[in-house]
Parts: sequence; C-alpha cells; structure tokens
Amino acid sequence: MFDSAVFDVEEIELAGETERIVRGGRDLFAKLPQAFDGIQQIGVIGWSSQGPAQAQNLRDSLKGTDIRVKVGLREGSSSIASATDAGFSFANGTLGEIYQVIGESDLVLLLISDAAQAILHEKIFATLRPGATLGLSHGFLLCYLDGIGESFPANVNVIAVCPKGMGPSVRRLYEQGEEINGAGINCSFAVQQDVDGRATDIALGWAVALGAPYIFVTTLEAEYRSDIFGERGILLGAIHGIAECVYRYLKDQGEDPEQAFLDTAKSITSPIGKTISRAGIRGVYTSLNQADQAVFRKAYSAAYRPALEILNEIYDEVASGNEIRSVVAASKRHDRFPMGEIGTTEMWRVGRQLTKNVEPRIHPVTAGVYIATMMAQVDLLKENGHAYSEIVNESIIEAVDSLNPYMDFKDVAFMVDNCSTTARLGARKWAPRFDYIFSQQTMPTLELEAGDDPTLFEAFLNNPVHDALAVCLEYRPAVDISVLG
Amino acid sequence: MFDSAVFDVEEIELAGETERIVRGGRDLFAKLPQAFDGIQQIGVIGWSSQGPAQAQNLRDSLKGTDIRVKVGLREGSSSIASATDAGFSFANGTLGEIYQVIGESDLVLLLISDAAQAILHEKIFATLRPGATLGLSHGFLLCYLDGIGESFPANVNVIAVCPKGMGPSVRRLYEQGEEINGAGINCSFAVQQDVDGRATDIALGWAVALGAPYIFVTTLEAEYRSDIFGERGILLGAIHGIAECVYRYLKDQGEDPEQAFLDTAKSITSPIGKTISRAGIRGVYTSLNQADQAVFRKAYSAAYRPALEILNEIYDEVASGNEIRSVVAASKRHDRFPMGEIGTTEMWRVGRQLTKNVEPRIHPVTAGVYIATMMAQVDLLKENGHAYSEIVNESIIEAVDSLNPYMDFKDVAFMVDNCSTTARLGARKWAPRFDYIFSQQTMPTLELEAGDDPTLFEAFLNNPVHDALAVCLEYRPAVDISVLG
Repeated sequence: MFDSAVFDVEEIELAGETERIVRGGRDLFAKLPQAFDGIQQIGVIGWSSQGPAQAQNLRDSLKGTDIRVKVGLREGSSSIASATDAGFSFANGTLGEIYQVIGESDLVLLLISDAAQAILHEKIFATLRPGATLGLSHGFLLCYLDGIGESFPANVNVIAVCPKGMGPSVRRLYEQGEEINGAGINCSFAVQQDVDGRATDIALGWAVALGAPYIFVTTLEAEYRSDIFGERGILLGAIHGIAECVYRYLKDQGEDPEQAFLDTAKSITSPIGKTISRAGIRGVYTSLNQADQAVFRKAYSAAYRPALEILNEIYDEVASGNEIRSVVAASKRHDRFPMGEIGTTEMWRVGRQLTKNVEPRIHPVTAGVYIATMMAQVDLLKENGHAYSEIVNESIIEAVDSLNPYMDFKDVAFMVDNCSTTARLGARKWAPRFDYIFSQQTMPTLELEAGDDPTLFEAFLNNPVHDALAVCLEYRPAVDISVLG
Repeated sequence: MFDSAVFDVEEIELAGETERIVRGGRDLFAKLPQAFDGIQQIGVIGWSSQGPAQAQNLRDSLKGTDIRVKVGLREGSSSIASATDAGFSFANGTLGEIYQVIGESDLVLLLISDAAQAILHEKIFATLRPGATLGLSHGFLLCYLDGIGESFPANVNVIAVCPKGMGPSVRRLYEQGEEINGAGINCSFAVQQDVDGRATDIALGWAVALGAPYIFVTTLEAEYRSDIFGERGILLGAIHGIAECVYRYLKDQGEDPEQAFLDTAKSITSPIGKTISRAGIRGVYTSLNQADQAVFRKAYSAAYRPALEILNEIYDEVASGNEIRSVVAASKRHDRFPMGEIGTTEMWRVGRQLTKNVEPRIHPVTAGVYIATMMAQVDLLKENGHAYSEIVNESIIEAVDSLNPYMDFKDVAFMVDNCSTTARLGARKWAPRFDYIFSQQTMPTLELEAGDDPTLFEAFLNNPVHDALAVCLEYRPAVDISVLG
C-alpha cells in the first residue's frame, strides 16, 4: 500500500485481490518537476543494458526542465563512445567520471552490473551525499548485502524502479510512445528507505519518466526473488531449454530441421507469444483444433510437474542467496573463461539460414510445454506470496511483450546476450536443467497411450491468473513493440 | 605426513612428489585388534550405499576377535530387512536403534545420508560417549558445520576413511579379495581431531578392514572438495553429459541409435575404461590408428577448455559451500518432488534393448571428449593443491575401477542411483551443463576444417599424472571387479 502527493493512485481488482497502481503516460511528464522536487541532477551510473535506455528516456522526458541527466562511467570505459553517440558528452556536462557523478547527484541510479555492485558498493556508499536518493533497478544489491551482513547507508533514500523488460525494450517502446501515448514497459517500484518522506514520489517520477504505462508496488526482497527467479525460469532459461528439447523431439518424430525450428523457437516467439499478448494464455489453447487440443493437454500434463520441480529449485537457490553468490563467483572467472556463445547449436544455425518461407504455427507440443512452465511459474509465485501485478508481469507480460519479440527478431543468443550478466549466467545455468528434465520425464510420456491429467488441466483452465492478466493487458496501449536492427 | 605404531608406512614417489601411504591386504587383518585397541564395539550408522558394504567388510575382517560390529538404524527403518538378510539382527545384538548404538559404541561410523547428517548432527554429537571416535566417510559434515558456524564436540576423535568407490564396489571387490589378496577399493583417510593419540591407527585399521589395498592421507577439507567435486565431474555428472551429447552428435552424423550407444556410453564404460585401467590414459590414444588419433586430438582440443570451465564452476560452488546448501535444500523438497529417473531418454532405452551383438570400440570423439574432461579435472585438482594420490583416485581410478564397471553392467541410471543422494543430486545438476557446453562449443568445431591444438595436446602427452597413475596402478592387485546382478 502506498500514497502519492503527486500522482493519482488507482485501486484495481486482480483476480479478487485489491492492488494499488499508478497508470503512466506522457501526459504526466509535466508532473515530473514536482515529483523530483529538490533534485537538480540525476546520475545514471553504468551503460550496459538498462543504462542507455534509462538515461535517454529520463533525459527526453525531462526536456525543458532544469533537471540534468548525467551519465557516470569509469575513466577509459569502452562505453564512452556509445554514450557520446547517444548525446551524453563531457563537453556539455552530461557525462562524467563515475564517482564524481555519484558525489554530485541528488538521485543516483546504480545501473552497473551486479558483480560490479558487489565489488564497488562500499566506495559508492561512501561517495553518496547525505540526503541523496539511491536508485536500483532490481533487488540484487539488497540480497548481496544481506548475505554479507551489511546494509545501505542510513542517511539516504533507497528506492528501486524495475522495468519488466530488458533495456532495449525500455528504450524502443518509449520511442514508440511518442506516437502512441502510454507505450512503454511496465515497472515495479519499491521503497526500502525513506529518510525525507519523498522516496515514493521520486520512485513514481522515475518510473513515469521511463515511460511505464503501469506502475505497481513491491519490496526489494520480493523483487529480487521474482526477478532473478523469473529470468532463470520462463523468461530466458526455460524458453531456451524448451526450444532445444522440443526441437530434438520433433526431429526424432521425423520433422526436418527447418520445420522443427519453426515449430519450436519460432512458434513460441511469434504465434504463441502474440496470442497470449492479445487473447491471454487460454487463448492459445482455444485457438487450436480438436486434435491439437488433445496433444496440448497431454504435453501440458506431462510438463507441469517437472517444470514446477526445477522452478522450486531455482526459487530456493535465489531465496537462500546461493544464486547471487554463484553470479559473483562466476564473474571472477570471466577473465579466464569468457562467457561462450549459446547460439552455436544446430537449431539456431538452422534458424539463421531458413529457406522455408512459411508462417510459423502454434505447435501443440511446444505450446503445451511452454505454457505448462509459465503456469508453474505463476503458481509458484502465488504460493510464495507475490502480488498478481508482479506475477503477471514477471511471468507473462515481460515474456510476450519484451523478450520474445527480440528473440523472434534475431534469436535466442541475441536475446539472452542483450540481458544483464546475471540473467545471462542464469540462462546458461538453468536452460540445460529444463531441457534434461523434460527430456527425461515429459517427452517419453508423449509417445505413450496414456493421456492427459484432467484435474491438472481443469486447474489450468480455472486459474485466477487469467483474469488478472486480462485486467493488466487492458492497461497496455494497443501497440506491439517494433524491433529495429 | 603421518606415522603409525601398528602399520608399515611406505614413502612413494608420485610424479616427483613424495607421499606416505599404507599398503593394505588381508595379511594385515591380524593387526586389527592392535589398531582398534580399546574399542569393543564399532557402530555402523545407516544402511544406504556405504553402510551395507562397510558393516559387512568390518564384520568379516574382525571375525574371531572380540570386537563387535553393530548396525544402528531408525526404529521402523525400511532397511532393517536388508540388514537382517546380511546377518545383522536384534536377536544376536548386532542391530539396534540408532541413538542406542551411537551411545554404546567406541567407534561410530556415521554413514547416514548427508541431509540426515545435517538435520541430526546435534543429537548425534550429544549422544557420543566422551573419548569415543567419530568416523565419517567423506567431508560433508565438516563443510556443513563450517557453513553454520558450528564444530565437532571437542572430547571425541574425529576421523574419516573415504573409499574411492561406491558402496557396492567396496563390498564386491572385498569379496573378490578372498581369492586375490589385496583386492579392494583404495581409501583416503583424514584425522580431524585426535584426543588420545590413537586416531591415526584407528583410521588405518578401519581402512585396512574395509579391504583397501592403498591408503593415503588427506584432510577433511581437501576430501570434501575433491570428492563432492569429483562425482559432479568425470565420475558421474560429466560422464552422463558426455554420453548424451556425443550420442546425439553421432546420430546426427548418420550413425544408427544402437551404434551411437555402443560408440558413446558403452565405449567409455568398456574399452576406454579398461584401457585406462591397464595401460593408462595415454594408452587409449596410442591404441588408436592414425586416422582415429587425428580425430581424438581434435576432440580433445575442442573439449578441454569447456570442460575446465564447468569444472572450475563446480569447484568454486563446492568450496563456497553453495553446493552443500543446495543438497540440503533439495532434500527438503524430496517429499513433494521425489528424484525422477534419468535413464528414460532414448539412448538408455536403446542400450537396454540392444540387438547388435558387436564388441564396443574406442570411438575417437567419445574418447577425446571423455579424456579431455578427465585431464581438466586432474589439472584443476593439481592447481588447487591436492596430492597426486587424491587426484589419481578421485579422477581416474574410481572411475575406471569402480563406477564405470557398474555403468557397463547395467546403465547410467543404475550407476548414478547406487550412489549417495548428494552424488545423485550432483549428477542431475551438472550433467546437463557439460552436455550444453560441449554441444555449444565443442561439437560444432569438429565439423570445421581447423584441427587440433598442438600445445594443449603436447601438455596432455607430457602431463606428470601419467607417471603418478602408473605407480598407483602397480599397487592394485591384478583383478577386475566382477559385477553381480
């Protein structure tokens, strides 16, 4: 529950639960000076996935105000050229050395990699001005500090605004928002420390300035659990593992490689994702003919429990701090072992050299396994007390409106490798686990006579999340992301 | 370094490094009463993998002495029937309730599952008699206690004897030792606490009584690192992932499923393993014809670095305690999600219904990938300060003399599922990672013109471990394990 002195807060019903949200839009940009009252400079620290998107969106949204957006980078950073291309420069005072920018900013958005946050947090904390606001875009740092028994400095606000999409989507949909008011990526926000009573409005202003059409509240802890979990699950890790596994299955069933690619990776990122985005999850099932519906039910029934098992393991690993410790350890190995490519296996090679010119279809096995995993993720988050806004955005909307379109445009390697290092590591770690458990427990049963699980499938059809998703989708402007090269 | 008042300690040279070892054998059983001086009862707690083997070997080795071997099990344990079949019974005082046996024994061998050790250790510690000796068969409990900031009770000896083979091998080779003196599974031992100056001789007596032909010293910390790491690596996790990955590769190259099974899983567990056991690792390479040697070099070169990358990740996860925390968390999920089968995928189904009656051959791709992984494991352990005895046993001898024969007899599911829960969980976790990294980084390069890496291959041929292995193999009696149904 939260209130705002600046923005209208709406109460909405999601599957019978009341939540408070703020609806965004360009018409609210006029309120940003009031939300950012007292803030003369916003420092955007880092230039990887979220940095470029957030710095540019904030600058563009604050055009005509006195508030400066300044990017902070390490001396000699290889990102200086790219930031300069985007209009940030030493010459006009919108680009500076990282600690200088941290020290002189009233709002510091810490968008460097998780590993860098782990290594640099002490110096960063020491450099923050008393009374400043520290902004995070996900909960990693809290989880890390908890693990080592440290905490945020007591004399600053600590807030988070967490876009439910990768950086390139945050920028691209914002650009499309120039023509269609409200196009943007949904954001959660959290207030961890509020030393001056202004933290909530600053967070809401930040989210509005990023172009978020729908802003919902969470806590840093619930955020890092659902976020780090979600990208290991249906958003990145599971989708990769499902594609590889079902591709092999369909080839073994006699499909040629191109058709198997179209019926798996392409089926998910194009017709399945688009159908969910427009008609909800059940819409995928009802769009199938009777024979395909039977196959879908069977695949769904055989995939739900194995998916839930791996997802429970992921959630436990994230909640215990293991996953974060692994990320920090992995980043220390990267000098010796740089992250390798994942798009080198046959299916992605086939996908990049498609000769068939046919529209991908909703393949019932692919759809059954993919949607079973999505529903298992939804059910697990509900069981662990997450709000529907978070569940729906972290398990469904982020997938079909942000990540899948990028995956559809290029391929899984491109998609995964445009995410954070934490997400990339997670996808490399968990995709194989989904692949193996489906290969061991799901695919072999598809060849058996035994059919679906009516109780499980009934629970799918009647899951309250379908209503919650329908409400959330109404808040989304009628625009699909147009991915550019 | 260690000394013994009971057994002869030999100094040996392993690749230029001096180590002290004890050579076992049935002729030493006469010394057991002296080694176990003051011990009237040995309690063997638990009856899963090591329990049945160790309880029976100890009982048989101590026949004719006054030392009683008594098995301790939970009331109503499902293992009571099996222990009774093996000759332990309430009636003759060789079977009792777990805490009763712990409290009345002078030497307590704690062979319950790791998860049970984590849950029950407080009560167990409180039940131990002051001055008793607590015996472990690997370092899990130390790692777990370190993680939660606890320690062993100060008034007991704490020792470990760690057979470098799974329980069924420890028993089966011991039985074969009746005919061939010295047949048995090599053991490491460690003295963690020595309150009465007798800990070393008790540990050596325990190892001799198990039938170990070769007993080398380690520390509990080095043991759990190398042991938990090794079973996730070449012993179980890697061999499973390699088999699945290369099987698919050979099928894609046009081999029929049966031939692909013979050229992967069967090739490793039969001709490759046997050749290593008799002629060392290099012997596999030199046994190939010139064309196959070229393929081997290429596969080795393409697999070594990806294998080393995953192995480094495993070693870090074990050393940080993450892996142990994951095991404990996983065991809490097993009521809801029992461990599923891993032998359900095509290759194992094919393997169980082989119609071809041909001898498996050393396939150069399989051998190259398998041996590259083995060498990467050897090199990593050396880099982390492990002694050659530990390296050779944990990476080579345990594989070719204990696990692979069981895998050859039945299949990977049987092999993996006859190991500890910790090992089974580890194999499920890491096999897919090896599979994916080889599929992404190794197999695609095999189709390219580019050849091998001469520097890397030269390092393989000249690796000092070959000499160390040759010395260790000399200590092994000339007997192959005969696996019974």
